[in-house]
Amino acid sequence: MARRRGRRVRPAAGGSGAVIVETIVTTVAADGTPNFAPMGVEWGDEAIVLKPFLDTTTYRNIAASRAAVVNLTDDVRIFARAAISNPQYESGPATLVRGVVLADCCSWRELEVQAIDTTPPRSRIAMAVVHRGTRREFIGFNRAQHAVLEAAIYATRLHLLPRSFIDSELARLQVIVDKTAGPRELEAMALLAAHVRATPVPAAPEHA
Amino acid sequence: MARRRGRRVRPAAGGSGAVIVETIVTTVAADGTPNFAPMGVEWGDEAIVLKPFLDTTTYRNIAASRAAVVNLTDDVRIFARAAISNPQYESGPATLVRGVVLADCCSWRELEVQAIDTTPPRSRIAMAVVHRGTRREFIGFNRAQHAVLEAAIYATRLHLLPRSFIDSELARLQVIVDKTAGPRELEAMALLAAHVRATPVPAAPEHA
Repeated sequence: MARRRGRRVRPAAGGSGAVIVETIVTTVAADGTPNFAPMGVEWGDEAIVLKPFLDTTTYRNIAASRAAVVNLTDDVRIFARAAISNPQYESGPATLVRGVVLADCCSWRELEVQAIDTTPPRSRIAMAVVHRGTRREFIGFNRAQHAVLEAAIYATRLHLLPRSFIDSELARLQVIVDKTAGPRELEAMALLAAHVRATPVPAAPEHA
Repeated sequence: MARRRGRRVRPAAGGSGAVIVETIVTTVAADGTPNFAPMGVEWGDEAIVLKPFLDTTTYRNIAASRAAVVNLTDDVRIFARAAISNPQYESGPATLVRGVVLADCCSWRELEVQAIDTTPPRSRIAMAVVHRGTRREFIGFNRAQHAVLEAAIYATRLHLLPRSFIDSELARLQVIVDKTAGPRELEAMALLAAHVRATPVPAAPEHA
């Protein structure tokens, strides 16, 4: 996750117009090992575009299997953990594609490759939605959940941003969490804050 | 909406633990006129707590009708418009309570009053979920949607916060919108930015 955010290049307002939805993308290696990657994807009802970097497990798995699953979940702990580690989660087989569905998702889309553009550093993979399912309702807008998502992005940029800036941003986001969080969001934010505190400040931080 | 945010008082992390969900609360006056109010509510499966200020239409309508509908929607234009005006939206009758359901909602809860605490300035209305329905899927996390929600909150605090601070916050949020928005989010953000630009700076702004 660390690199994909800092180098995202998208047109300014009025550009492609595709809404980017933050999801957990699951893919499967040749030996069956599932991979869970938080990823912002270009959302559509019938087609979804993924842009994994070429050196990621997600890219390699999709290039080989020609399939992926995009999971929507309102449990931000999954995004927080994935920002600072390489977690595994409970999952079950997808219905139509070679892939797995996150057990705790709200809903999911099963995708098949339509076209892959491998121009470095990121691929652009256009995928068709071939199946979808729902497990539970995604419960609307919670400010704390989004504060955690923004904090998770900062947690992947510790090598790119001045620590004083990250500290002040985390303090700002913590106010929103304290006002609007439930237990899941408090746990996720605490995890990220502890990770930032435990990470040494780089000797010569670059500015992103 | 202008006052409810600035005076929200909630316990710090580890407090009540109730997740606050940003919703559109619909209520109906004695003459049948519907009212649409954006409101953060304490969310629960079986019970939901609303805290409207005592001088609001929402409070008066619930006190009289003993009912409300909480609507979840991923269309942030509704929140943006409600932050800067008193809009009306298409709606239809609720199933079990005296109230209306937002036509464009993703899902809704119909609520009946269990208890009202009228200690000023805000009421605390504990309500039971007596019916629920779903219209369409709420499509996960979009950073632009939450940037618009945060911008909408600032738009209701123009009289409380230094304009230079609001301008810098809107610029920060616009970056997220430009990266991740679809047409709905671009429209909502443009609406809020235009409102802020058109609103004169108060002579002696207070600091919230």
